[in-house]
Amino acid sequence: MGERIYNFNAGPAALPLPVLEEIQAEFLDFKGSGMSITEVSHRSSTFDEVINDAADRVKRLLNAGEDYKVLFLQGGASLQFSMVPMNLLADGQVADYVDTGTWSTKAIKEVEILGKQARVAASSEDQDFNYIPKNIAFNRDAAYAHITSNNTIRGTQWQSFPDTGHVPLISDMSSDILGRTFDIAPFGLIYAGAQKNMGPSGVTLVIIRQDMLERVPGDLPTMLKYTTFADKNSMFNTPPCFAVYVLQLVMKWIEESVGGLANMEQLNRQKAALLYDYLDKSDFYNGTAAKEDRSIMNVTFLLKDSSLEGTFIAGALANGLVGLKGHRSVGGCRASIYNASTLEAVEALVSFMAEFERKHG
Amino acid sequence: MGERIYNFNAGPAALPLPVLEEIQAEFLDFKGSGMSITEVSHRSSTFDEVINDAADRVKRLLNAGEDYKVLFLQGGASLQFSMVPMNLLADGQVADYVDTGTWSTKAIKEVEILGKQARVAASSEDQDFNYIPKNIAFNRDAAYAHITSNNTIRGTQWQSFPDTGHVPLISDMSSDILGRTFDIAPFGLIYAGAQKNMGPSGVTLVIIRQDMLERVPGDLPTMLKYTTFADKNSMFNTPPCFAVYVLQLVMKWIEESVGGLANMEQLNRQKAALLYDYLDKSDFYNGTAAKEDRSIMNVTFLLKDSSLEGTFIAGALANGLVGLKGHRSVGGCRASIYNASTLEAVEALVSFMAEFERKHG
Repeated sequence: MGERIYNFNAGPAALPLPVLEEIQAEFLDFKGSGMSITEVSHRSSTFDEVINDAADRVKRLLNAGEDYKVLFLQGGASLQFSMVPMNLLADGQVADYVDTGTWSTKAIKEVEILGKQARVAASSEDQDFNYIPKNIAFNRDAAYAHITSNNTIRGTQWQSFPDTGHVPLISDMSSDILGRTFDIAPFGLIYAGAQKNMGPSGVTLVIIRQDMLERVPGDLPTMLKYTTFADKNSMFNTPPCFAVYVLQLVMKWIEESVGGLANMEQLNRQKAALLYDYLDKSDFYNGTAAKEDRSIMNVTFLLKDSSLEGTFIAGALANGLVGLKGHRSVGGCRASIYNASTLEAVEALVSFMAEFERKHG
Repeated sequence: MGERIYNFNAGPAALPLPVLEEIQAEFLDFKGSGMSITEVSHRSSTFDEVINDAADRVKRLLNAGEDYKVLFLQGGASLQFSMVPMNLLADGQVADYVDTGTWSTKAIKEVEILGKQARVAASSEDQDFNYIPKNIAFNRDAAYAHITSNNTIRGTQWQSFPDTGHVPLISDMSSDILGRTFDIAPFGLIYAGAQKNMGPSGVTLVIIRQDMLERVPGDLPTMLKYTTFADKNSMFNTPPCFAVYVLQLVMKWIEESVGGLANMEQLNRQKAALLYDYLDKSDFYNGTAAKEDRSIMNVTFLLKDSSLEGTFIAGALANGLVGLKGHRSVGGCRASIYNASTLEAVEALVSFMAEFERKHG
């Protein structure tokens, strides 16, 4: 085996090494079954234990009560952009959307494709989506208010969630779910692709409140109805078993090795602070997100001399630091430091950045 | 590691042991990247090679020309039941469906949910779906003709495909794709969940002909349009990377270890013959599918004395033979003997069946 690299990929991203080692160790014989987890029937008690434990751990970590159901879907957040309005926005109703860039913008577009009504309640497009809008006048009659809790591309994150009164909040939390604690009560639905903070790609977590399930129209295609997944414990058809299994192990790691979500958040804040503190004291690098809205998951920055960017990224790679190129739509640099990225990895990055600054500054 | 069991699961099902061993060996360090395949970015050249090689191998194995595209989706065949008519059946048009049980029945239901027109061109419901309808009068003006090439539950399989003239054939091939050779030319679209003959659950293979792509309406949700996947090499959003990777390795195994699809078919026919020959000479067990329509993938049978069924299945399990219980909707027994199940496994099953017959017959 080669040396493990420091992985700053935006997703699929680093996974906890002990989890990977556990998967590898039991890959040919899952819990003494004589089969790989990839060969186990989803209709077996063996797999029931996996999927139920995964859901239970998510609920415990998020402190979600009996009125929430944890579902495992496929298709990523991109399919949720359509499923949310198909299921929860009746014709004639309006939904509020806050546009914080790319993913919010795509979510709004899918409402329009369905011929339904999305109102852009606020947008940060005027400053290239480098901040989170504040003091938003939400529509108190909206079917729901939709936000993207963390913008992976711009490196912005809602520091606290807006008060929408009795209007249920819905959030795409793909890039920060289970990275920090928050009060789930105002949320009617949360969705997230697993491949950043929770596991590999191929499974989409949906956490839905009972009153939202009651909105689901009867005439939707079976696989596009939340009720299909809620009624059949996410197994109307074959679920993505391996991805659910890895997610279960990551949840177990957060609970039992990290010691819970508060500890996870503390570690994430420590990693982010290390990077942001360095950016702030440097004249060589510039953070791109508004300071008060900085993400603890995706740290976006530019080199003052942008002509050095290619050299920086290539040099980082040569030093075992992968995934620092910004999203192809915006350029620049980005370090994604999700749950599984270690303090050691961030320290190695800061140390490389300092050395690069000394050499080229 | 415990002993490997003989796995007759209907899906997720047995995978080739050399493939599982390769995955395990490189699980912490994929091709010297210093990362697990589950941590590799889907936007990297590393993953490009995986997904492109997987698609190329599928095309080579099926002898599919330039006018076919291989796509990797999510949601299983169950989502395809809706996507096929959403994309390929315009309002006012009619599609022909042959109902050979459960999965065909569900596919027809999803057309109706969409308010579109499915005509049942033929059905074998009159004999509890134990045969494949013959001499079907297809509608020469149909948008397409849909069949289920193999019925996993009833153990029936189309031995040859019907002539529908210029009407494109569409088939759910979830349980027999890449288990035998066939001429792809009449097919406009083929779909299949991977978890029987190709890999783990979590990825759905779609093979689509260029003229079908031209039918896709512009106003569908982005993630429900075949064109989205065709235009973006199945990476409009993050694909189920691990499942695609395993599928690639299984394709490589068929090409390079088994020696191609003709060899794969020969092995499958040999396994099936072993079981059916035994059933036919026994008075203790009865095959349930019509002889001329028997599946080489799923062998369904009953014990003449049905009160012994529980003892049989428990005894098999005690002897290291798992997954022999028939589908919960029909009962009885079923041995699924997909590509990765070995001749040795089938021999062990026949030998157990003979011993059980001696003891209880």
